[in-house]
Amino acid sequence: MTQHAPLSDIRFDPESEGAGFDAAFIAIEVARLLHEGQTDAIREFLESQELADIAALIDELNDGDDLDVLRLLPLHDQAEMLGYLRPRAQVDLATRIPRRELVALMTAMSHDERADLFKQLDEEAQEAILPALSKAEREDLRRLAAYEEWTVGSVMTSDYAVLKPEMTTSQAIEALRAQAIEAETIYYAYIIDEARALIGVVSLRDLLTARPRQQVAEIMDTEPVWVRADDEQEEAARLVARYDLLALPVLDNSDRLVGIVTADDAMDVTEEEVTEDFYKSSIVQPLEMSVADASIALLYRARIFWLVLLVFGNIFSGAGIAYFEDTIAAHLSLLFFLPLLIASGGNAGTQSATLMVRALATGDVRPADFGRLLSREVLIALALGLTMALAVSLIGVWRGGPEIALVVALAMVTIVLMGALIGMCLPFIFAKIDRDPAAASGPLVTSIADVLGVIIYFTIAARLLEL
Amino acid sequence: MTQHAPLSDIRFDPESEGAGFDAAFIAIEVARLLHEGQTDAIREFLESQELADIAALIDELNDGDDLDVLRLLPLHDQAEMLGYLRPRAQVDLATRIPRRELVALMTAMSHDERADLFKQLDEEAQEAILPALSKAEREDLRRLAAYEEWTVGSVMTSDYAVLKPEMTTSQAIEALRAQAIEAETIYYAYIIDEARALIGVVSLRDLLTARPRQQVAEIMDTEPVWVRADDEQEEAARLVARYDLLALPVLDNSDRLVGIVTADDAMDVTEEEVTEDFYKSSIVQPLEMSVADASIALLYRARIFWLVLLVFGNIFSGAGIAYFEDTIAAHLSLLFFLPLLIASGGNAGTQSATLMVRALATGDVRPADFGRLLSREVLIALALGLTMALAVSLIGVWRGGPEIALVVALAMVTIVLMGALIGMCLPFIFAKIDRDPAAASGPLVTSIADVLGVIIYFTIAARLLEL
Repeated sequence: MTQHAPLSDIRFDPESEGAGFDAAFIAIEVARLLHEGQTDAIREFLESQELADIAALIDELNDGDDLDVLRLLPLHDQAEMLGYLRPRAQVDLATRIPRRELVALMTAMSHDERADLFKQLDEEAQEAILPALSKAEREDLRRLAAYEEWTVGSVMTSDYAVLKPEMTTSQAIEALRAQAIEAETIYYAYIIDEARALIGVVSLRDLLTARPRQQVAEIMDTEPVWVRADDEQEEAARLVARYDLLALPVLDNSDRLVGIVTADDAMDVTEEEVTEDFYKSSIVQPLEMSVADASIALLYRARIFWLVLLVFGNIFSGAGIAYFEDTIAAHLSLLFFLPLLIASGGNAGTQSATLMVRALATGDVRPADFGRLLSREVLIALALGLTMALAVSLIGVWRGGPEIALVVALAMVTIVLMGALIGMCLPFIFAKIDRDPAAASGPLVTSIADVLGVIIYFTIAARLLEL
Repeated sequence: MTQHAPLSDIRFDPESEGAGFDAAFIAIEVARLLHEGQTDAIREFLESQELADIAALIDELNDGDDLDVLRLLPLHDQAEMLGYLRPRAQVDLATRIPRRELVALMTAMSHDERADLFKQLDEEAQEAILPALSKAEREDLRRLAAYEEWTVGSVMTSDYAVLKPEMTTSQAIEALRAQAIEAETIYYAYIIDEARALIGVVSLRDLLTARPRQQVAEIMDTEPVWVRADDEQEEAARLVARYDLLALPVLDNSDRLVGIVTADDAMDVTEEEVTEDFYKSSIVQPLEMSVADASIALLYRARIFWLVLLVFGNIFSGAGIAYFEDTIAAHLSLLFFLPLLIASGGNAGTQSATLMVRALATGDVRPADFGRLLSREVLIALALGLTMALAVSLIGVWRGGPEIALVVALAMVTIVLMGALIGMCLPFIFAKIDRDPAAASGPLVTSIADVLGVIIYFTIAARLLEL
């Protein structure tokens, strides 16, 4: 058994420095052991590893080898490990697993993850699997898979723990023990009536600390936080974060309990939403997959729309310049300051916009705070503009004399103030008209600030220089 | 008791539409009841509410009223509620609570939250509290408060549950029952030896599903994921997310268990880090507090540095224009296209940068993927550039004839390609030199793209128009 010694010595951390190398390196080792038939050594190695890391390893293995390694795991671990694979890798693996084996695997998977996998399979594969599942599971799968992509329903799971209100706490703990293999979590249990209406939530912690003969009904929280299945998924993530929940119950429109959103799934939703906000803030449309998996055509489509749109927006800047052609022709040295003036307006605007977009997203600032923040922003922008005017007027004196310096300094204060106010107001306007404030930032603010910057600069120049 | 009827009917959701109004409205109602002496009505209302919402209510109440309402809560709820207040509101309240009451409150708080509060108090208040605490608590407080702001130690808590390896699972469950009031979580328990070295982790779920006479040592995970106390806090958040943990054990440099980071605290860290990344991506320096709480001076300082720096960067764009003054004077119509060409380079660059920054942050892309992504980016950028060249050449023909159209189209392809490659490479370069890739985006990319855009455009124009 000396062959596997190097393997167990490796601290397997594919995210750390030189990480790609490590996962790939272990994959090579594992493949070698596999071809030598040293399956016991691999099994022993796998036992010492986290499932998320095993998923990274399986992702690195060649087709065929990955299936062989997967099969060395106990069925329950196989099922859980699948949930850690990227969607694309998951489907790729699933389509190569023989049908009977895949059915067993999907039966063991948590309900939300198997619904996600099922949705990704092609119709033929779906049709092959459905008849092999039990009726209850087939219905559960169909129901979960039917929710639209952006809803709470699409991220919830239906394998939650339930209790009856009349149970004693010790009976309840026994009941949770029995549900522990199936349920996604047993740390929160849900109490429902005959119509499946949610009447309370109890934590395992409360069950353990209560007296053994107390009834569940006495200790349960009868006004728990909940969410609707067709609400937006980010609402579930927001509630989980706000109330520090391990899981959040999900009700349908008839108030029946249909699922829970666990904290780790809520974290995934938050990560997705944050990525989307980053994209929007730099005029990239949502990809709905990792950028590493996205095709060239998909990335092209996600980027071209706003790029072309803003080209047309920038025509106004060009038109502004053309309108002042005479002023420019008379004072060509004005052009030297054009880039830094319009860039400053855009930069100040980008700052304000990001501060507001982020504060609105985290709830630090509410639409009602607009007035108070606006007056503060005016003062900050004036201070910023004056500092920058000072800096730029020195360059102005050097490049074009005191008159040009005055024009440039005046333009700077005005443009920075204008940029900052646009950056500050646009997110609130977007929020008001029910659009995502995240879209009201970066390039859009910059483009508007560019147009106005050109007009402000040359208007001031035309007035002051042609007295 | 009819007075409080309107109160209990309100669905208290301060984050939803018109939220500010609701929390403020309830505060008015509660203040009225308070002044009428209807404390029972308020107490009944509070019992039906989540602590996070009560914190929002207390935040809205006037000084004095907030203390009165706080005192209507049981001590344990008071302590937990405090943790939901914004840091500034927490300190404001704490400094008005009589010392003896504050000591009782801080004794009941979770260890991490009381250390955070303690750090915010002024020295006088700190000195007043310390002697009143028990020796163990004083030491715990000092130890937790000593960790630097950005470390794992600063977000961990020391009130974790511990078990002995030789306990049977039923003894272990009894032990957790006893620790349930004090411990932050009892869903994971930590097994340590006499030197406090971490030898294993076991979940309450595993304890419940094991046979009652099995020993903890047999079922515990002996190779749990852990983190060092002086690692960066985002490392803890990353591990919690990657391995879907409810809590992560924290070791000191002698491998002793010193704390845990819970999933909800990890989520808070992630939110902070995301905010910082958003700020960096739009040249705002980290604020270390909510933008709503930040002073004008602090916001000014966070913004001025990069604004001025980029002004000087943009001087190069101005110098570029000045260098080509003759070409421009001969063909003033070229100026019309200047804004849209340089904006397009910046916009394409911002897109690429954001895609890379976010993918590096989530781990979707690793530095080792650079080569593969670069060649893909070239193809995407060419496709984007050609599309935009087509759009802009039509405007070119209309504004300046076929020669100008050719210049503008050629410049567009080159500038978009250049911008996209800068946006793509800069985050990787920053990662390579151990700076945060998030800083390599937006305005910085735009500024570089501006300078090069000016040079590219007029170089092409000078060559083609003066043949």
